[in-house]
Amino acid sequence: MKKIPTGRRHFIRSATTLTSAMVGLSLLPNISWGNSLESAPATNAPGANAPGIKTPAPFANDQNIIGPKEGYSPQIGTLVSMMAWLRPQVINSIKSLSVEQLDFLLDDKANTIGALAFHLAATDAFYHEHTFKGIEWGKWDKAVEDKFGAAMELGDAGRKKIKGNNADFYINILQQTRESTLAEFKKRDDKWLLAVDEKWYWGPTNNYCKWFHVTEHESHHLGQINLLKSRLPGAQGT
Amino acid sequence: MKKIPTGRRHFIRSATTLTSAMVGLSLLPNISWGNSLESAPATNAPGANAPGIKTPAPFANDQNIIGPKEGYSPQIGTLVSMMAWLRPQVINSIKSLSVEQLDFLLDDKANTIGALAFHLAATDAFYHEHTFKGIEWGKWDKAVEDKFGAAMELGDAGRKKIKGNNADFYINILQQTRESTLAEFKKRDDKWLLAVDEKWYWGPTNNYCKWFHVTEHESHHLGQINLLKSRLPGAQGT
Repeated sequence: MKKIPTGRRHFIRSATTLTSAMVGLSLLPNISWGNSLESAPATNAPGANAPGIKTPAPFANDQNIIGPKEGYSPQIGTLVSMMAWLRPQVINSIKSLSVEQLDFLLDDKANTIGALAFHLAATDAFYHEHTFKGIEWGKWDKAVEDKFGAAMELGDAGRKKIKGNNADFYINILQQTRESTLAEFKKRDDKWLLAVDEKWYWGPTNNYCKWFHVTEHESHHLGQINLLKSRLPGAQGT
Repeated sequence: MKKIPTGRRHFIRSATTLTSAMVGLSLLPNISWGNSLESAPATNAPGANAPGIKTPAPFANDQNIIGPKEGYSPQIGTLVSMMAWLRPQVINSIKSLSVEQLDFLLDDKANTIGALAFHLAATDAFYHEHTFKGIEWGKWDKAVEDKFGAAMELGDAGRKKIKGNNADFYINILQQTRESTLAEFKKRDDKWLLAVDEKWYWGPTNNYCKWFHVTEHESHHLGQINLLKSRLPGAQGT
């Protein structure tokens, strides 16, 4: 029996629309993959602080090439390529949903799909405040707390405050927070990414771990979003 | 309001048991973090093919240090550190569940928690066969197909064939497949990780992307496992 090379049932179908989603939504305008549309020989990344690592050529369609990317230091570029691989899957999963579907509650302790999408933007925003601005976790400016607090909290706060928004609302906030993050990544290097916060909640933790958590967090909640989608009234599949 | 630095409600509690889970289950015996228990100065990784990148010191407790690791080439070590960060969260989430809880079905199209755990092992196994042995996707040896086919398929096949196993069964199969993967990673370098498969289903895709998918796949299904856990009969929380 030949199966598709992923456990996610709708992955192949989603993957075929990744490029259009990225272009159509201008999702990652700060990513500079270079101007060449050809499959050029490997080159060193501008500004790379690890000359031994070669950067993959900037393919015209390189979303499935994880690794160093032009415009970023090698490890930051690698992390950005992971983020860029996952994000369109989130967008594809929510972009066609109605307000009612985005507000669907599986049961009285569930989070809505809309709240989970907002939560991903909030995660980006709070780690941005913390790692780029040096703000201690939880001691946010009031404007940031007011904008993202309920989305970060989820649960009762999310169910009460996050509703009635259409897909574009969530896509826009995801795009805005990610653009800000990528702009800051461009200014930093691998030394910053590997720097360790000895006093972090989990024990000694580097910026790479904090931002990898933000990255894999999208998969975590995308798994839930897809499970909830398949339970929407009238939904097909599993 | 001060919130914990993650959207996952039970993350902090889980994180405190990461180390014991890794030690107790001998989860990653093939990872060599070095012998020093001190916070030594950064050193170059043995066998590294990117001498410009410094390897973080081998901390005694370094699960939150994402980046190059001793014993692996820099980018492979980084990927391995991501895998090692996520895996104990999966183990922690399932290790205390009963057979009945592992077999719980949310509804008639749901996957059980046990099947999802087995699915993660199957994903490791199939990508192992494909990327290390060069076997075309789906053309598996019969023994591999018989062992992992239903777990990879999930859905009806999973509901029919995967049941009645205790937590140790799933933990053991997760451990066995991951150990095999790490052993192969030790033999390879970043050139291999960045090599592109031009004919892959998703379009040109490198080994890094394939194995990053395996990695983030754990988050994807862990999100679902945690959602299902909170719906077990008598479960508390969200």
